[in-house]
Amino acid sequence: MFGKTRKSSKEFDSVNATLLIKGGFIDQTMAGVYTFLPLGLRVLNKIENIVREEMNEISSEMLMPALAPKELWEVTNRINTIDVLFKASGVNDLSKEKNPSEYVLNSTHEEVVTPIAKSFNYSYKDLPFSVYQIQTKYRNEARPKAGLLRGREFRMKDLYSFHPDVDSLKDYYEVVRESYFKIFERLGLKEFTYYAAASGGDFTEDFSHEFQVKCDSGEDLIFYSKEDGIAFNKEVAPCLAPESEVHEQEKPLQEVFGENIVGVDDLCKFLNITPQKTTKTLIYDSDVGVLVASVRGDYDVNEDKLKKSAHAKWVKLAKEETIKEVTGAEVGYAGILNLPTDKGLKIFIDESIKYLKNFETGANKTNYHITNINWYRDIQPPEIFYDIKMAKEGDLYPETGKPYETFKGSEAGNIFPLNVKFSTAFNYYYADETGQQKIVYMGSYGFGTSRVMGILVEKFHDGKGIIWPENVAPFKVHLIGLNLDDEQVETKANKIYKQLVGAGIEVLFDDRKEIAAGEKFSDADLIGIPYRMVVSKKTGEKIELKKRSEEKVDLVSFEECLNLVKK
Amino acid sequence: MFGKTRKSSKEFDSVNATLLIKGGFIDQTMAGVYTFLPLGLRVLNKIENIVREEMNEISSEMLMPALAPKELWEVTNRINTIDVLFKASGVNDLSKEKNPSEYVLNSTHEEVVTPIAKSFNYSYKDLPFSVYQIQTKYRNEARPKAGLLRGREFRMKDLYSFHPDVDSLKDYYEVVRESYFKIFERLGLKEFTYYAAASGGDFTEDFSHEFQVKCDSGEDLIFYSKEDGIAFNKEVAPCLAPESEVHEQEKPLQEVFGENIVGVDDLCKFLNITPQKTTKTLIYDSDVGVLVASVRGDYDVNEDKLKKSAHAKWVKLAKEETIKEVTGAEVGYAGILNLPTDKGLKIFIDESIKYLKNFETGANKTNYHITNINWYRDIQPPEIFYDIKMAKEGDLYPETGKPYETFKGSEAGNIFPLNVKFSTAFNYYYADETGQQKIVYMGSYGFGTSRVMGILVEKFHDGKGIIWPENVAPFKVHLIGLNLDDEQVETKANKIYKQLVGAGIEVLFDDRKEIAAGEKFSDADLIGIPYRMVVSKKTGEKIELKKRSEEKVDLVSFEECLNLVKK
Repeated sequence: MFGKTRKSSKEFDSVNATLLIKGGFIDQTMAGVYTFLPLGLRVLNKIENIVREEMNEISSEMLMPALAPKELWEVTNRINTIDVLFKASGVNDLSKEKNPSEYVLNSTHEEVVTPIAKSFNYSYKDLPFSVYQIQTKYRNEARPKAGLLRGREFRMKDLYSFHPDVDSLKDYYEVVRESYFKIFERLGLKEFTYYAAASGGDFTEDFSHEFQVKCDSGEDLIFYSKEDGIAFNKEVAPCLAPESEVHEQEKPLQEVFGENIVGVDDLCKFLNITPQKTTKTLIYDSDVGVLVASVRGDYDVNEDKLKKSAHAKWVKLAKEETIKEVTGAEVGYAGILNLPTDKGLKIFIDESIKYLKNFETGANKTNYHITNINWYRDIQPPEIFYDIKMAKEGDLYPETGKPYETFKGSEAGNIFPLNVKFSTAFNYYYADETGQQKIVYMGSYGFGTSRVMGILVEKFHDGKGIIWPENVAPFKVHLIGLNLDDEQVETKANKIYKQLVGAGIEVLFDDRKEIAAGEKFSDADLIGIPYRMVVSKKTGEKIELKKRSEEKVDLVSFEECLNLVKK
Repeated sequence: MFGKTRKSSKEFDSVNATLLIKGGFIDQTMAGVYTFLPLGLRVLNKIENIVREEMNEISSEMLMPALAPKELWEVTNRINTIDVLFKASGVNDLSKEKNPSEYVLNSTHEEVVTPIAKSFNYSYKDLPFSVYQIQTKYRNEARPKAGLLRGREFRMKDLYSFHPDVDSLKDYYEVVRESYFKIFERLGLKEFTYYAAASGGDFTEDFSHEFQVKCDSGEDLIFYSKEDGIAFNKEVAPCLAPESEVHEQEKPLQEVFGENIVGVDDLCKFLNITPQKTTKTLIYDSDVGVLVASVRGDYDVNEDKLKKSAHAKWVKLAKEETIKEVTGAEVGYAGILNLPTDKGLKIFIDESIKYLKNFETGANKTNYHITNINWYRDIQPPEIFYDIKMAKEGDLYPETGKPYETFKGSEAGNIFPLNVKFSTAFNYYYADETGQQKIVYMGSYGFGTSRVMGILVEKFHDGKGIIWPENVAPFKVHLIGLNLDDEQVETKANKIYKQLVGAGIEVLFDDRKEIAAGEKFSDADLIGIPYRMVVSKKTGEKIELKKRSEEKVDLVSFEECLNLVKK
């Protein structure tokens, strides 16, 4: 077999990159782009076959191309909005002259699958149905990182479903969710995997969902409510600020001059107060008018939540002119006091401000802030305090009032109600029972197969190397022959190898003669195959058996070995 | 299963495109780029698994990326010379801003595999070895055509081998050749497949070899010597012009004025002679000096042969100035008579001219041609008559003196002695037994898996549709249920379906109720699964069995069916 462990002590930016490269599983062709060496391809194939088996229970496999004509992506305008989209075009003059066209290199396949599905489906009898593929995807990442966790070229399973109505979509959504958890179970990841609500993007007012594997090198922050087993991606986690009630005397309202004091950090230093005594007020443009959003100084505004609270289709930080017009001041002095009442402003005050006493706000006057504000005395509280803040560690889950558990997660999969976005763009309608034309509902469901290979290493390793779960290990048995210069030992080792293979067991046989025992053992630990068997002069008729996940070493007969491994 | 046969009567530019699209195997995303629908993916997977099984006997599978840094391709300068090479770069401003880099989209993987191999191999003990992959390739074809035969995105198996010396490379070359013929045998293509010599390109003075499947829609013209079973691609076929000897009286030499008469067609009309009476003389630049190449008027010069005859590294049609200087005339009047003797010209006269009498040549004088030239009388024959012509139908194989059989071929695979081209570029040396640094020899071996799917359809079809060989058929049995509104029949059909599946047989079950029998039968013929079984009211307890490749229909018991299919 081609490939070797690497002696280099070079550390890469993640555990999975370091161990997979040192173990001879992958080779880095460039940042975010890897070759799967024979050992690594075996693992990837096992992961993809588990995914395939589960997907075949609920869908039908096909294979779409990576190249697509630009026209398809212009239909949805995503050719202009996806910031990681690649194009393919001639690299040199000869090639450009031969064919000057440019194509999209798909990072996802809604633009390809929707017209195909449309071409095959004419009536309600054809719906619902789904198709999936396991294929290579391309993303022009600025900073690929963490080995197989975020690449420019990676393997992915993507499934697309098509439905006569939203209920059918919701039913299938649950089918896929269950199927995914079967996959995580077979991969040994179920206990670490959280079904987390995430942003629905442009597609839906509802959430999409991510399958987040708890993992220190993950990119996402997960807010988990243990009591009811509900998890959220930080970007959408509903939250209450903890310890909100403050017991202190009301102090006299004060207008403070502070030239060019803008931003919470500078302000806190200047006023010698904590961020929890300040507020942060931002002005937004939106399709429903100008919005004022205010959160406690130690929080940030969550635009997704603001958008939903305002029932807006879009929100965007207001331009300088708008801010000046609304506040009557330069940018940086907006506050909730003394806002004009004649401009139709919609004001959203976060609940983190609700219980504050003697708090600060911008004075809506250049270079001025107001301190020691108190509700009722200085300003009437709004009818509703909203949750428009970005959640942070320590926040409470509103339903239980208890603190979230927070941890990093790596997104292994996601499921997404696309609803009618793509069917609308591609005019994908069907005839219902009465012959009426109705729009098709769609869902999409991703699963990062190469990323999961990286996640598995992040989860299952120790100081010596990888500890593969049995279902994805490149081989079941790592057979090490020692003292192979001794003809008797060599014969025995070869015999055991053949017997194992004959029994249908996948064996990696280390029959190198020039390598010392210690190096063979550390290679075995690094590679992480579940069962290590050693045959040497010392072991006589028996075999030294060790599980990678345990320290115990047993001297057992071949039959015992076989039983244990086959079990 | 997703996908349907297409009713459209649209014909595509090839049998394979038409039948595969109509049959619901593939869908065209754009010219030269196809989606493999579930039915088609099953066929592709079967082909690739056959290839994989045979390759695993002689090599080790890995998976290289499609993206590569430009730097790797600059090492060999092929980034500037391959005229179908794609690059990948950001498609929109957002993406370009995020990452302005450009990457090569590999059309072949020598530039990727050589540094990987080098990084793992340090001594003679590591050699020889090989690796292969089955992967998606990209080519910026100007005019993709013939369905799966020539695409911009296609599936391919590519194998690369590494050797301590040229003999080891030659040995392995034969190993791969044998392995390929095992594959063709399993695909049902062996009897149509020819091992044809082709150009060695820049890599070798020897030939490379192509596995050409005789096929009317093939792009190559194959010259086959039946006596000794040797085949050549037209581009390298050695040849003798047939019926070369002419018996006629010598006529008087004549200089003919013909203003602007350039080119064989015009000349023949003007002189009222056949092209076989004319000669075509071209002036070339080369690394060994200026070459004069002359062939009979009905032939073209084969630059590859000329290069070899002249022992040149490169040849290129000479510039206008050179031609004027050499011939003393405008372009179009070069001939073999009266060439200057003081310019070091190297003259190559093709054997097709050897037996001519009273033939024409350019006069090396603007607007003049000379006719009725005869050897000895007007010009001394050269010491050697060369074979520098492009072979054409009817030509003789020089070894036997008998006419070639010629036919079109589609290249299903090729094997290529790369020798030291890439190891030199990447400084890939190894230490031999004595510690001396020696260059590594390499070979590359391609096999077009998706193209072979197209070739199979070209070979195995009739007026009604495809006739898949059993090893690659998407299913073994096409089970058609008729009269399924009858509960008894439906129960029986379902039972047979389950029994077949239970017996480990792949079954496509047409259980559609709304479709008429005739349509189901024509779908079955179009799809081309080897065994058609029909269960209907009429068949009672028996099953109507028909092989796709035969006309005969039998009414047999389930057990008989099973035996026949399992056999």
